[in-house]
Amino acid sequence: MLDNVLSTLDGRKQQSLASLKELLSIPSVSTKPDHQDDMRRCATWLSDQLKPAKLDVQIMPTGGGKGHPVVVARNKHQPGRPTILFYGHYDVQPPEPLELWNSAPFEPTVRKDENGFDAVFARGAVDDKGQVWAHCEAIIAWQAHGGLPVNLTMLVEGEEEIGSDHLEAFVAANKDLLEADLCVISDTGLFDRDTPAITYGLRGLVYEEVFLTGPSHDLHSGGYGGAVPNPANVLGRLIASLHDADLRVNVPHFYDDVETLTPREKQMWAGLPFDEDNFARHEVGVALLSGEKGFTTLERLWARPTCDVNGLTAGYQGHGAKTVIGAKASAKISFRLVPRQDPRKVQEQFRAAMRERCPSNVKIEFANHGLAPAAIVPIDNPATKLAAEALERGFGKPPALIRTGGTIPVVGLIKQTLGIDTVLVGFGLPDDRVHSPNEKFDLDCFYKGQRTAAALYDKLAQLGP
Amino acid sequence: MLDNVLSTLDGRKQQSLASLKELLSIPSVSTKPDHQDDMRRCATWLSDQLKPAKLDVQIMPTGGGKGHPVVVARNKHQPGRPTILFYGHYDVQPPEPLELWNSAPFEPTVRKDENGFDAVFARGAVDDKGQVWAHCEAIIAWQAHGGLPVNLTMLVEGEEEIGSDHLEAFVAANKDLLEADLCVISDTGLFDRDTPAITYGLRGLVYEEVFLTGPSHDLHSGGYGGAVPNPANVLGRLIASLHDADLRVNVPHFYDDVETLTPREKQMWAGLPFDEDNFARHEVGVALLSGEKGFTTLERLWARPTCDVNGLTAGYQGHGAKTVIGAKASAKISFRLVPRQDPRKVQEQFRAAMRERCPSNVKIEFANHGLAPAAIVPIDNPATKLAAEALERGFGKPPALIRTGGTIPVVGLIKQTLGIDTVLVGFGLPDDRVHSPNEKFDLDCFYKGQRTAAALYDKLAQLGP
Repeated sequence: MLDNVLSTLDGRKQQSLASLKELLSIPSVSTKPDHQDDMRRCATWLSDQLKPAKLDVQIMPTGGGKGHPVVVARNKHQPGRPTILFYGHYDVQPPEPLELWNSAPFEPTVRKDENGFDAVFARGAVDDKGQVWAHCEAIIAWQAHGGLPVNLTMLVEGEEEIGSDHLEAFVAANKDLLEADLCVISDTGLFDRDTPAITYGLRGLVYEEVFLTGPSHDLHSGGYGGAVPNPANVLGRLIASLHDADLRVNVPHFYDDVETLTPREKQMWAGLPFDEDNFARHEVGVALLSGEKGFTTLERLWARPTCDVNGLTAGYQGHGAKTVIGAKASAKISFRLVPRQDPRKVQEQFRAAMRERCPSNVKIEFANHGLAPAAIVPIDNPATKLAAEALERGFGKPPALIRTGGTIPVVGLIKQTLGIDTVLVGFGLPDDRVHSPNEKFDLDCFYKGQRTAAALYDKLAQLGP
Repeated sequence: MLDNVLSTLDGRKQQSLASLKELLSIPSVSTKPDHQDDMRRCATWLSDQLKPAKLDVQIMPTGGGKGHPVVVARNKHQPGRPTILFYGHYDVQPPEPLELWNSAPFEPTVRKDENGFDAVFARGAVDDKGQVWAHCEAIIAWQAHGGLPVNLTMLVEGEEEIGSDHLEAFVAANKDLLEADLCVISDTGLFDRDTPAITYGLRGLVYEEVFLTGPSHDLHSGGYGGAVPNPANVLGRLIASLHDADLRVNVPHFYDDVETLTPREKQMWAGLPFDEDNFARHEVGVALLSGEKGFTTLERLWARPTCDVNGLTAGYQGHGAKTVIGAKASAKISFRLVPRQDPRKVQEQFRAAMRERCPSNVKIEFANHGLAPAAIVPIDNPATKLAAEALERGFGKPPALIRTGGTIPVVGLIKQTLGIDTVLVGFGLPDDRVHSPNEKFDLDCFYKGQRTAAALYDKLAQLGP
């Protein structure tokens, strides 16, 4: 039956691309209140596509109606089969800065990328609409061929890009509906164009904002400079204090719980076809990479915790000069965590260090914008092996087992609330410019992703209930 | 004759206030192109007031007509008399943020200030229109009583608040017209309400902007964090490196040329009625002041060089979280200089230190937004003594000899191009909110300022040619 499903998918390339473009044209920017209607429109569009495939589809409110709605779709569950929870998200990052886009972010455009490969360019192309839609195509095809071989529950949310604030409560309140044996997510990528991948580890996140207040109002830097605390000067000192000379994070006890990388993983990653020079020069755009002393680039990205300043705001930011000592200065600072680090503990370690290092005549306050533990899926479990077979079927090559430096908080959330592991089978490419202008989804990856998804549901049927 | 002039001034309080309100009602905001007409209107208004006083008044273009015009007014110069150049400016800072004004910035309003003293509230009230007008009243009164006892050239420019860009060329091109023995400026203040002051020292300024570039585009902090240079992290380190633990500026050779404060000045300032606690709590709004180790607050403000961050821009600055490693980060950083420090040398010292401390995989670039040397007028020169007598006549109390932490670049410019010293005799109060909403000029200071100006021209006649 899988062969029939695959040939249906192969025959629907134009239609599936047209559908994806429809989906991408809805500006479902979750963070902006003026896109409220677009969010609902996007959920409705998805629902309208899935209903004809004999799925039971509901658009369900979150946060008592204050959150963006969730789309839940289920086939008819039958006893004796494993239940798979597919998770995806239909919301996207804001497209700004607009002037850097070569085509409008919500007017999906197919053209060749820098390397001559066909891709569809739009905000959300690969993160996550394109990957969600690859699954939808596979699911719809299965349903047209007698039905999926597994019990499927799809959960497509609208708040991933704003921290999935209402998802935990939603999942907790709908455990019976969402109960499953395994979760599948496609929100990651291949290792490179020639190497499909299963991502078995994710870093966690602590995202903090620090607010400093010195004088009660902005002061003239001539009249007052030298005798008053300048919060922007202090902010520089606090930021600098967060790393030592080896670029290790300089927060007491930060490394206490950090899991050491196993020799097996070190060896496995060392064998990956990673072109460091190409990564540096073409993907990042620097002549030389840098990071924590004593680790390779992949180890730094996948298995070591970090601290990065994500935003700085202080004083005058306009053109030219203003001789001002700003009353306030602030920084957005985030940590990526590795397995065994507790986000709340790291948050407290960070705040304690900042409080201790901040001079007493500058007030320091904090806000949190995210806490998520790292996640790891045991490499040797059956689901990972089945997913590897599906990827080989879809992409024609066996996948690498990799981790990612990013965070998908929902993996931890699902483990916590539903007690199940997640298999991460992603179809993106490293240069897809996720969250950046000119985000794209490679068409070859899109079609092979559909095939992989189709094969995955077939393989996972072997899991048993 | 001075007595007659003073009693004329005393009899004209209502008229002089009415004239000042007229002047203040012209929104001569030099930085905004849409105020071009207001600039000309303001220059014309001044000219129209001065012409009837038997002064030769010209409105002269600057920058080949691209700059705002300068008003030059001269009495009939006679041999055997000293020539005094009065410098002032008729342009004002932008009034924004408008919502913080208790009365409209260009609808001058007389009311009591927070301490119950009558004041006129308007943008430019004290900086510098009110002080310029105090001189005009004195000059007009002298002219009505047989004429000023000195040769006077008034130079009132319209670009002080935007860096006096065209003034240097104007002065250089009009040396004959502006030639003088001494310059007088009233753009400073009293030490406090009960202590008139002569400001004999100004700090200089080096205002730089630093631009860092790491990756070629913004990166996801999850996918890349830990292995790539983050310009915002680096900016923090660079800023932190600018001070040592004693809050001394940590730039090699920065202090090489710094003039040591004389015991006489230390003693003089220690005797000033400076209420440090009130300054900290009410003027600055902090519980505790801080600054370079080993110096008092007044020494830190007046005689020690500083480094302050005036603005920071990096990454995401909106609400909440964005997990981004910004490609760029920038800081506006300024230094206040003390006598003998060379602005160009300090600029080069700063840039060299930053270049050396910046990692090689982050590009560093600079822009300059201002260079001005510190200025000092010898305390013992005859002009200072005569000015002190004038202030005592005007305010009824002998003045303190103080410095200011701010910079008046025109003092250096006049010294350089015309070769003359400047006496700074100001009528403002520390709480006049220069450059801020609710700028004011105390009416008592306005009237006493007129008397001081009248006495000053009388005293300065003693200087001889």
